[in-house]
Amino acid sequence: MSAGELTFGPRILELADRLAVHSELTGALACTYLTPAHRATANELAQWMRDAGMAVEIDGVANVVGRYAAAAGPAAARTLLVGSHYDTVVDAGKYDGRLGILTGLVVIEHLNRTGRRLPFAIELIAFSEEEGLRYSASYIGSTAVAGSFDRSLLARRDEAGVSLAEAIAKSGFDPDAISSLARRREDLAGYLEVHIEQGPVLLQEGLPLGVVTAIAGGCRFVVTVTGEAGHAGTVPMGLRHDAAAAAAEIVLAVERRCTGVATLVGTVGKLQVPGGATNVIPGRCELSLDIRAADDATRDAAVADARAEIVAIAQRRGVTIDVRETQRTGAVACSPRVQALFAQALGRLGVKPRFLPSGAGHDAVSFGPITETGMLFVRCGNGGVSHSPRESITAEDADLGARVLLDVLEAY
Amino acid sequence: MSAGELTFGPRILELADRLAVHSELTGALACTYLTPAHRATANELAQWMRDAGMAVEIDGVANVVGRYAAAAGPAAARTLLVGSHYDTVVDAGKYDGRLGILTGLVVIEHLNRTGRRLPFAIELIAFSEEEGLRYSASYIGSTAVAGSFDRSLLARRDEAGVSLAEAIAKSGFDPDAISSLARRREDLAGYLEVHIEQGPVLLQEGLPLGVVTAIAGGCRFVVTVTGEAGHAGTVPMGLRHDAAAAAAEIVLAVERRCTGVATLVGTVGKLQVPGGATNVIPGRCELSLDIRAADDATRDAAVADARAEIVAIAQRRGVTIDVRETQRTGAVACSPRVQALFAQALGRLGVKPRFLPSGAGHDAVSFGPITETGMLFVRCGNGGVSHSPRESITAEDADLGARVLLDVLEAY
Repeated sequence: MSAGELTFGPRILELADRLAVHSELTGALACTYLTPAHRATANELAQWMRDAGMAVEIDGVANVVGRYAAAAGPAAARTLLVGSHYDTVVDAGKYDGRLGILTGLVVIEHLNRTGRRLPFAIELIAFSEEEGLRYSASYIGSTAVAGSFDRSLLARRDEAGVSLAEAIAKSGFDPDAISSLARRREDLAGYLEVHIEQGPVLLQEGLPLGVVTAIAGGCRFVVTVTGEAGHAGTVPMGLRHDAAAAAAEIVLAVERRCTGVATLVGTVGKLQVPGGATNVIPGRCELSLDIRAADDATRDAAVADARAEIVAIAQRRGVTIDVRETQRTGAVACSPRVQALFAQALGRLGVKPRFLPSGAGHDAVSFGPITETGMLFVRCGNGGVSHSPRESITAEDADLGARVLLDVLEAY
Repeated sequence: MSAGELTFGPRILELADRLAVHSELTGALACTYLTPAHRATANELAQWMRDAGMAVEIDGVANVVGRYAAAAGPAAARTLLVGSHYDTVVDAGKYDGRLGILTGLVVIEHLNRTGRRLPFAIELIAFSEEEGLRYSASYIGSTAVAGSFDRSLLARRDEAGVSLAEAIAKSGFDPDAISSLARRREDLAGYLEVHIEQGPVLLQEGLPLGVVTAIAGGCRFVVTVTGEAGHAGTVPMGLRHDAAAAAAEIVLAVERRCTGVATLVGTVGKLQVPGGATNVIPGRCELSLDIRAADDATRDAAVADARAEIVAIAQRRGVTIDVRETQRTGAVACSPRVQALFAQALGRLGVKPRFLPSGAGHDAVSFGPITETGMLFVRCGNGGVSHSPRESITAEDADLGARVLLDVLEAY
């Protein structure tokens, strides 16, 4: 294959279009865990994998696992995992998760077509559940394979009252056998995931690909400000304890603290005065707080400063501010060796290696603790939007991503 | 009657309790325009006025008008109006509006008991509608008497689809005769209104009464910020166009601009990110803006500065901010002569005269343009809360208010 000739890209986009046909909605993509659309997607992926020379099974949590055998040799017993997820959010884009599966697929199709085997087996895994929609729990697919599946989730119920255990059993799997899906660390050569960036950094910098340094950890908080309601006309400014004004100070303090620090981001995504009225000074304001960074120390320092600032705001304004932590996940660093392999492959294609953290979580989070893990980001069009039908990539970028993955597999 | 003896106060509180029995709700006070509870309240007030020697009618918009005739003499044809409203908000306090009616009532009861007539007639008017609940229009009662009733309101419908004209007709009145309720300016000696402060100023300063200098005018705006939604983890701080952060700047800019300027107040009472999610950078934020001052120039300067600041925030942050004015009412100055009469009466009772504006609207707004208008505020307990069952006054303060009104009537 000669450079500049698009072989992988158009096929990736075409396969993504074909997968998106399986949806719970008409005219929009939704593929939620263990729905008929989800099952149809798995079956189609399994067929494509078989056609590419893989031994395929749909495992006990509905992951689609395709095994491309190793060449005979000393490393033949080891397995390199390549994967991403096939479930989606509601009204989703076609590439979130699926790009990683399809990039692995077209690369293995190429190996198979050219009759090549690598010194290790490749398992291409289409994870069944990453978005966390149905059970408010992410990574069901990848934690099962990584051996960190949280069995307490089996009792959790979806909106229709169906427990995870029941949903798995109804799909023909055995919830009690999930632990058997775990791979042994010593068998693994690593984990590679290609994913759309879901952000604007590469787009802004005019780069098609990026090497992920870490998957950010995050803290989430529910913040409730209680001040004193009052008549907007009759309470002088100096006598007010305005909950919304205190909340506004928090929003700006978080923004200020998180600006200018590499990989750190802080967001107030929810903000509201419940039952607010134009002529009533807000007595209560509710907001969310989400702080992330590529390393936990950076994030924890920002969280500590934000908390201190909130205490100062409460004291200065004579309001009460309750801060409740609702989620905390640690950052997962990517393997420096795999980062270097990606960077070298980029260099060979004449693309400047851009190292960046992932602010969003990915299946790679499940593998960081057990094997050498690496991620490659592909540029996201339309301002970097994802979780939206406006999500887009170009065939050129998809093609480059596949070439880099192939190069890294060959150099691994 | 000797000083220090509470004659008026306990009766005012008792009558307020008795009026509050008529309610649309069980266990809470609601008295909306032209409901059965409203009619029962009017009938009870009419009876009390008759018992106090007044000639009473319930007029064509359901105002209860009690006329206490003048002594014979050169000014006998002139009428001094004393009034406030008997309708309430939902889950209201017992004194908002009613305190002014009952203060007038107990003072006229006293004049009647002691067989005294003043050189002018007194019309005690219990206005039927001030709160604007049923038809989103305030001052139906007082504008009818002041001759400024807006006839276009007759076509407006309540939530049940009943037009104002229909509601008035159903109550036995003639909507076409409303214009006949207007008083002639040349017949009026003035308009006096006693009202609870509905704010914390007198309470904070330890004063029972205050002399109102003006009723603040106000501007209201609906402000919509449109930024760019994005993933809270993947969009670096420097690439964001966060609608909530822009809104937070507006909240604090308004607060800053309105602080430290006498009589000026600015409030963001509504604030929300529609459909906000913890992990999504707000693409949209909606807020209300309410700016008031005792004189229009002060208010308009603040509005202009707030608008300029909003434009600057929009430019700096790369967001769009739409500002739509939804209401604008001019300030109404109280008569300096009536203010002086109130102040002298306070002085005679040993109370330091505190002059303050009214940030809330009152029926007096309708009379400012046509006759000498004055208002007396009575201290509000519980931090100054109103429009709430926690609204409170003391018998002592109510008593002082009635003595001051009597004194002013005698000195008028």
